[in-house]
Amino acid sequence: MNSWFTELQTKDMALSCRVTEILHQEKTPYQELAVYNTVPFGRMLVLDDIIQTTIVDEFVYHEMIVHVSLCTHPAPRRVLVIGGGDGGTIREVVKHQEVEKTTLVEIDGRVIEAARKFLPEISCGLTDPRVEIIVDDGISHVEKNKNAYEVIIIDSTDPIGAATGLFEAAFYQNIAEALTEDGLFVAQTESPFFNRDLIRRVNREVAEIFPLARLYLANIPSYPGGLWTFTLGSKKYDPLKVNKRILASLNTKYYSLEVHKAAFTLPLFVAALTK
Amino acid sequence: MNSWFTELQTKDMALSCRVTEILHQEKTPYQELAVYNTVPFGRMLVLDDIIQTTIVDEFVYHEMIVHVSLCTHPAPRRVLVIGGGDGGTIREVVKHQEVEKTTLVEIDGRVIEAARKFLPEISCGLTDPRVEIIVDDGISHVEKNKNAYEVIIIDSTDPIGAATGLFEAAFYQNIAEALTEDGLFVAQTESPFFNRDLIRRVNREVAEIFPLARLYLANIPSYPGGLWTFTLGSKKYDPLKVNKRILASLNTKYYSLEVHKAAFTLPLFVAALTK
Repeated sequence: MNSWFTELQTKDMALSCRVTEILHQEKTPYQELAVYNTVPFGRMLVLDDIIQTTIVDEFVYHEMIVHVSLCTHPAPRRVLVIGGGDGGTIREVVKHQEVEKTTLVEIDGRVIEAARKFLPEISCGLTDPRVEIIVDDGISHVEKNKNAYEVIIIDSTDPIGAATGLFEAAFYQNIAEALTEDGLFVAQTESPFFNRDLIRRVNREVAEIFPLARLYLANIPSYPGGLWTFTLGSKKYDPLKVNKRILASLNTKYYSLEVHKAAFTLPLFVAALTK
Repeated sequence: MNSWFTELQTKDMALSCRVTEILHQEKTPYQELAVYNTVPFGRMLVLDDIIQTTIVDEFVYHEMIVHVSLCTHPAPRRVLVIGGGDGGTIREVVKHQEVEKTTLVEIDGRVIEAARKFLPEISCGLTDPRVEIIVDDGISHVEKNKNAYEVIIIDSTDPIGAATGLFEAAFYQNIAEALTEDGLFVAQTESPFFNRDLIRRVNREVAEIFPLARLYLANIPSYPGGLWTFTLGSKKYDPLKVNKRILASLNTKYYSLEVHKAAFTLPLFVAALTK
């Protein structure tokens, strides 16, 4: 099979990967869903022709969206994940023994089913007894739940279509209300090379709502530019003063206490986005 | 003009950029040389269909290959740059006041001429009076010069064709002899996602020749995977104990003292390549 999948990363830049097998394609009520087996990245989940997660590099994204926030909060008992239907974020959340319950709110149940079938290494955490799965809109879920979570993780697609509302100030305000009084949240916030206006705006809005707003970085080669930002908003705990005790039992390939700290050390042009 | 330049980053992965203008194309004695104007990366120098440097992200590579080594050595008076015909590395070297003379040894004089004409923002440092330009093979240059440089920077193309010898143990031995007794060198050493065997081997060979061998990282979106390694070999000075005094006068967009230190904090899967 001599086939390529091409993602138009911006309207002027594209990443192409050689495909060995098309494992699945469907049109869900929300999006086009595909699972390809590729040479450079192994099996790959694609939504509306945008790479979401791949076997080769998913550990970076999932470890870094989860452990930074969960190691910052000293007692994350209830953790909400918005989006993240592939289950990779949940897999990392359930590594934390202090988590008593974690709720996945994914708008498109078909993503969960496809991940269960084609990406078992990523979705495996969904079977943990502490996991509650809700197929619903994350925006309405946080509106209905107040003072309910120590940590909220926004594991969204790009700010296009259904996910646009997950990058707006009104949503961050509802997130603040859904968190406990010492809660914190983290969101994936795109590329510092190609989405600077978005990062600047989100950082400003989060800083208006939360006492602490911090940007950090991780390297994800299947995403545009290979460098990705996460924005963390916290009511009390500072991620720069991480709780070391929690770290011992994590079995990670990217994350460590040192990497956690270094991730907040921003190249000057990235730091400038937070000023 | 609806034209795309595509780099086959590996045999199974490609990056494509929309081209607005083909500024230059020629066949030199060593390689195919092209300069394109692209939308995502601005003007771009391409050798044998591989992106070498672009206006948008060149600052990352050039700052990080230069300032880490030059800020580690307390008195870098003589600095050798092997390769680097675009001049970007020299531009960063001459920001250091302690540098009395810097020698560029580029095998292909046509690269220097193309950079002078089409990439003036990058090549501008070549006019500094402290710069000596030699069009020659870097391998034979280091064989002929002993105890001559405090810092050597290997700003090479990928380990294919003419550059293969720049990634071999015999060359690192000659580098050691071309350095002063407290000298150090740095080389670009490819992607930790796609060139792990190379990184592992180079790190081992450098560690056999130099008392200190250290790997560090920078984020370069136009390179495969967007994350790049540099290997530093040092006879005396440890880059983890950087000399702060030198830093004040540098005008940088990526590099800072904090970024210098964080660049050596390796994600666990990268750290594993050095063991």
